[in-house]
Amino acid sequence: MVLAIDRRIGKYAILLAMNGDQEEFPVVTPSQWKSCMGKVGSMDSQKVVAAIETAAKREGIIKSDGYRETHALYHAIMDALSGVTRGQVQLGSVMRTVGLRFSVVRGNPYEELEEGDWIAVALYGTIGAPVRGSEHETIGLGINHI
Amino acid sequence: MVLAIDRRIGKYAILLAMNGDQEEFPVVTPSQWKSCMGKVGSMDSQKVVAAIETAAKREGIIKSDGYRETHALYHAIMDALSGVTRGQVQLGSVMRTVGLRFSVVRGNPYEELEEGDWIAVALYGTIGAPVRGSEHETIGLGINHI
Amino acid sequence: MVLAIDRRIGKYAILLAMNGDQEEFPVVTPSQWKSCMGKVGSMDSQKVVAAIETAAKREGIIKSDGYRETHALYHAIMDALSGVTRGQVQLGSVMRTVGLRFSVVRGNPYEELEEGDWIAVALYGTIGAPVRGSEHETIGLGINHI
Amino acid sequence: MVLAIDRRIGKYAILLAMNGDQEEFPVVTPSQWKSCMGKVGSMDSQKVVAAIETAAKREGIIKSDGYRETHALYHAIMDALSGVTRGQVQLGSVMRTVGLRFSVVRGNPYEELEEGDWIAVALYGTIGAPVRGSEHETIGLGINHI
Amino acid sequence: MVLAIDRRIGKYAILLAMNGDQEEFPVVTPSQWKSCMGKVGSMDSQKVVAAIETAAKREGIIKSDGYRETHALYHAIMDALSGVTRGQVQLGSVMRTVGLRFSVVRGNPYEELEEGDWIAVALYGTIGAPVRGSEHETIGLGINHI
Amino acid sequence: MVLAIDRRIGKYAILLAMNGDQEEFPVVTPSQWKSCMGKVGSMDSQKVVAAIETAAKREGIIKSDGYRETHALYHAIMDALSGVTRGQVQLGSVMRTVGLRFSVVRGNPYEELEEGDWIAVALYGTIGAPVRGSEHETIGLGINHI
Repeated sequence: MVLAIDRRIGKYAILLAMNGDQEEFPVVTPSQWKSCMGKVGSMDSQKVVAAIETAAKREGIIKSDGYRETHALYHAIMDALSGVTRGQVQLGSVMRTVGLRFSVVRGNPYEELEEGDWIAVALYGTIGAPVRGSEHETIGLGINHI
Repeated sequence: MVLAIDRRIGKYAILLAMNGDQEEFPVVTPSQWKSCMGKVGSMDSQKVVAAIETAAKREGIIKSDGYRETHALYHAIMDALSGVTRGQVQLGSVMRTVGLRFSVVRGNPYEELEEGDWIAVALYGTIGAPVRGSEHETIGLGINHI
Repeated sequence: MVLAIDRRIGKYAILLAMNGDQEEFPVVTPSQWKSCMGKVGSMDSQKVVAAIETAAKREGIIKSDGYRETHALYHAIMDALSGVTRGQVQLGSVMRTVGLRFSVVRGNPYEELEEGDWIAVALYGTIGAPVRGSEHETIGLGINHI
Repeated sequence: MVLAIDRRIGKYAILLAMNGDQEEFPVVTPSQWKSCMGKVGSMDSQKVVAAIETAAKREGIIKSDGYRETHALYHAIMDALSGVTRGQVQLGSVMRTVGLRFSVVRGNPYEELEEGDWIAVALYGTIGAPVRGSEHETIGLGINHI
Repeated sequence: MVLAIDRRIGKYAILLAMNGDQEEFPVVTPSQWKSCMGKVGSMDSQKVVAAIETAAKREGIIKSDGYRETHALYHAIMDALSGVTRGQVQLGSVMRTVGLRFSVVRGNPYEELEEGDWIAVALYGTIGAPVRGSEHETIGLGINHI
Repeated sequence: MVLAIDRRIGKYAILLAMNGDQEEFPVVTPSQWKSCMGKVGSMDSQKVVAAIETAAKREGIIKSDGYRETHALYHAIMDALSGVTRGQVQLGSVMRTVGLRFSVVRGNPYEELEEGDWIAVALYGTIGAPVRGSEHETIGLGINHI
């Protein structure tokens, strides 16, 4: 099991999340991989989780029925949120808000076929006080087998 | 205080950390900004902290004497480590190891001069079992006023 | 102070919580011990705490007035919730819900009389997305001197 | 996706871990499921992780090569350790030690075939000061798709 | 950088927060230092954060516009809340409430001029169940460069 | 159960810990209360725990045999350490060190006799990089029924 140099699923997810509207970073994921992007801004961490899950199911990145893939995605989201929140996975309850772009990428980043599919969730944007401009950047990445 | 579009300190730091040896992402930070990069691999979180602090002082990103700037950098490092470890800032004690590239960037990412200097620490690489290849990607970003 | 083999207060509490309606595990706690059981399902961690406290006071496991025993029970509940939530003691705010059976057992599990009473809180059930069936099992146990 | 009443993988794992040498709880897991048990006592959390991983690979519960199954098991172990340690996944560094029995069970606990295999890690035993008898019971359960 | 014996910013902040209405501890901070005090009681951690921020801005301890000083204060508040909550920065969601006095002190506690201003936030009061008297004391201190 | 104004066990413990060698704050605890003080400096959190436990037993604050009182003290120490470390109860593993004075106070802070004895552990000193002077103040308080 070796991470293939040209199949860095986390790097792809990060670039997609940082891309913004101008597609600053042209990202071409390996064929047969799936990915989606979206935006969410909230003081409510539940809404961030829901926005990503909804997008990933709607875009067919994970199966919308069954639990297995939802479970894999959920923990990737929670890991990404850990990076964004750095310590306590809390937003409004500690008086802060986020404005995030997210991406979800699915594929096999390893050279061995039998490693199967993995899922990467990247979040990039700002975190700060609920006052315009009182914020700095933040990033998070969660990766899980699926 | 508005984050200037072309002075995203966190984005610059992330791209520098993801750049690898080939300079995949040509990063031109604003003039008068300072930055450095490095690599560290360890099961010992203390060594990760030390490697970044040493590089930042040696490269003149922060003052090597005095406490103020060291304090600012330290907390940026800890925030970045939170993203990498997602939950417990522990490596060897929970049987995992990291192989990371890091970057430290210093400058003012806001449109207002009086926001002064900020520091961004980005970590990108792999985390996993202490067995070659048993690892996936991870990222962390910490930003602090300095 | 040695844990007596036939007075494992935590094991009793776990079996009571896992018993379900059919009393799958016949549990006979030492005479003079006290215990109660109950069920609670919620996305609101506050409701889980309240359900257990209310039951323990109503059933006379702890004194309903005074702070001392309430304090002992509270921390046993929080410890049990840590096992259920594994990391962040949050439910709805990270989009998950629990369906739990709980038990509270009070008695002296040690061979020495002077170790006095201890309290065990066990939680067993499911945790998962707020979608029927999207869940897996979870357990938690908190033990405190009282 | 509904948890089948007679295929509670977490409950099986807990009973196996609580069984002790006398097989107090006769556990018959569904045919085609795999399970193993073991003991580990340490002030070093790394040793607990290693003991479970080694047993699970040696007994063929997970594949000993490849990363995918190791990754699934690792996070189940960490979840189980969260329940045991309740807050900080630390042992010796906060002056405490554990004496644990563990079990690892692999199988599909859902009624739907397509939910595939899941893995449950249960830990049961004592946690306390590094002084004989200065300890109380503790439990932890981690469940992951594999 | 040496902490000056007579400029212990944290000690001053703690004494101010513990002072109560009777000024039990006469506190004379160095000239040119700034400080303010206040009270807040809530099950809502967001309200604690907001009360301190509002007081610090209203009393001119930090600039009310711009992000830099708000960011410094915010993290000092979060550190102080960590001491008060000891583990999870949660109040009502885990069924507890606080009654706190707070102080914010700004000045240079070091012998070297170039260490510049630092900010200390102290919280002292009670934490407990939402029942009168079911509470014990708690303290927290956060210190940051500003 | 009401905290008696003149029996603030936490406040006494904090003042004792902040007293230094000059007895800056004359502390007279209620008769029949017990207290001890000490100093510990370390990058090793285990040593901090051990120093406090040893002092409390040697000075007769808690019984040196039996588990019950040791258990109560241990959790008070851990709570106090949470305030000192604010987030992760780690010192050397995240490259920081502490220089602390500690106090342990035992008595009944409530107006009602039946609330019995409680124990307070206070820590006050500095935390910072393992470089002389690169440090700021820190405090922690843990209170438990005993």
